[in-house]
Amino acid sequence: MEKVTIRILADRLQLSAATVSKALADSHEISEVTKQRVLALAAALNYTPNPYASGLRRKKSKTIAVVLPEVADSFFARVINGIEMVAQEKGYHVLIRLTHENFEKEKAILKDLGGGRADGILLSVSSATADSGHVKELMEKGIPVVFFDRVLGDIKAAKVVTDDFESARKATRHLIAGGCKKIAILTVSTALSISQQRTEGFKQALLDEGLLFKEEDIIQCGNEPDLIQTQIRQLLQGPIPPDGIIATVEKLVPEIYQACHDLGLAIPGRVKVLGFSNLPTAMFMAPSLTTITQPALEMGQAATTLLVRALENKNPGLPDQYRMIPSELIIRASTGN
Amino acid sequence: MEKVTIRILADRLQLSAATVSKALADSHEISEVTKQRVLALAAALNYTPNPYASGLRRKKSKTIAVVLPEVADSFFARVINGIEMVAQEKGYHVLIRLTHENFEKEKAILKDLGGGRADGILLSVSSATADSGHVKELMEKGIPVVFFDRVLGDIKAAKVVTDDFESARKATRHLIAGGCKKIAILTVSTALSISQQRTEGFKQALLDEGLLFKEEDIIQCGNEPDLIQTQIRQLLQGPIPPDGIIATVEKLVPEIYQACHDLGLAIPGRVKVLGFSNLPTAMFMAPSLTTITQPALEMGQAATTLLVRALENKNPGLPDQYRMIPSELIIRASTGN
Repeated sequence: MEKVTIRILADRLQLSAATVSKALADSHEISEVTKQRVLALAAALNYTPNPYASGLRRKKSKTIAVVLPEVADSFFARVINGIEMVAQEKGYHVLIRLTHENFEKEKAILKDLGGGRADGILLSVSSATADSGHVKELMEKGIPVVFFDRVLGDIKAAKVVTDDFESARKATRHLIAGGCKKIAILTVSTALSISQQRTEGFKQALLDEGLLFKEEDIIQCGNEPDLIQTQIRQLLQGPIPPDGIIATVEKLVPEIYQACHDLGLAIPGRVKVLGFSNLPTAMFMAPSLTTITQPALEMGQAATTLLVRALENKNPGLPDQYRMIPSELIIRASTGN
Repeated sequence: MEKVTIRILADRLQLSAATVSKALADSHEISEVTKQRVLALAAALNYTPNPYASGLRRKKSKTIAVVLPEVADSFFARVINGIEMVAQEKGYHVLIRLTHENFEKEKAILKDLGGGRADGILLSVSSATADSGHVKELMEKGIPVVFFDRVLGDIKAAKVVTDDFESARKATRHLIAGGCKKIAILTVSTALSISQQRTEGFKQALLDEGLLFKEEDIIQCGNEPDLIQTQIRQLLQGPIPPDGIIATVEKLVPEIYQACHDLGLAIPGRVKVLGFSNLPTAMFMAPSLTTITQPALEMGQAATTLLVRALENKNPGLPDQYRMIPSELIIRASTGN
């Protein structure tokens, strides 16, 4: 079947393309009789407006883009559910674009979206993102951006976060209360806002409890599972192995369990393990995993609500809003005795 | 900052908008000198082409859309990684759109994409999808569609699947070999191709081994966790409770573990459990989970390769190709003795 265009409708109705186009846009310049003729034929031929053409006219795509590192993580998967709940209610399409922790890819995606493919952006930056120039460029074009979870510090923008500093502090104090003397914290980036907050909370807890902090206690893991596995084994087989590990990213958890299993180190007997995670299987792991559980759904909802409000108030500047929704420490067997 | 348009470039250069537009498109009608002047100013002002306008000209968006039920599932998350690997290599953007198992939403998304927002579609249908009219409409517009995993039977199209029938048969025989006499199979839809294949494989295995099949052994679960939990408890507390359960969808696994835990039914002692799943934590669960593990990454790669080939050969008809990549039974403690 040939694609039905405005030109085809115009030819069949013996009208000009401009008249058909205006009739479809419900213009006051066109008579009701003509509008009805156009709409009837458009419906009969199953005409779909070309979004490029109608986007040019309307300047709005009724589309929100979500730009985030990956979906193979229960936190992001749940955030997306929260985003879709609000977007659906407000009549917006949701596009998801993945950066795979790559700064160049993030820049290319924002550049592409900046051309008008989305009315507004929900962004959680990659672990490799070094500055905010690409986001500023987008905002200067009048496209509102709301950051969630992984935010950039050097930019005035709306941000929805959780209490990473307090969560890490609470997690660390919990391990110390359980008897840990040497705790390691594993991150995927030292540049990310959330990693910095979490390592600062970790350091603060050590200070609170009178324990010594060493730079070597912060392990920056790579992206590949094999590399992560090697790093964790080296840590556990080092001269002073940790008796407690905090995984600040969910995907590190199975790697820690794997290494402990292979090296014959009992969890929590030899090493206690705590993960920042929303894994639905956390309570059924062997041993069940103590977690910092983030308000993923709520963060997605809050970020989308802010963005839609900015879009509907025609206020693309979006005030420098900040929402913090606290995380929860859920104690299970992996940090027990 | 005002959005830089072709009009603004034209005014500054004292050229017509048409000349600027042609210069940007590297038209042979425009002199090299003029092209250089236009490109220099465009770069200086950081001009981004409007995708609606350039889409109209090019008729191609260099975009692949992935339409699938959800991402909170390790199978789909891994499929997406496979898709992005091939798309990146071939220079395509990837958009992800979620149907949340809703047929109306799936129809609305395909209608929207059919207007030109994507060059081609990778589709895994929702569990509520009742017919293929909406997909046929898209294909008749010349937009190639490749199905993956959840395919529709009543449509000639390219399809990438795994061996659902054989996998379920193998899984069921494994449970019977371990001593199970009464096995239940849990699905989320009886309409889905994969559910039908899996229940047929289940029935065949019972037949192979001389066990009786009863309709009540197939449980169609709801979408909400609370409802699923109630259904599983009823099953386990029924007059003849199963001694083996096959979860054909990953999200059912934690619900089964939860119900067994709460009812004090040991896995695998009282009931053996097997899940179709790519969970990275499967081997660290208590007990570790026996799985049918699907070739998720490979399926994503294969589907994208087929689609890109169709797009680049300008062959939107896409021959009725069929690729089957086998799944693997990985035996762990949840079906042991």
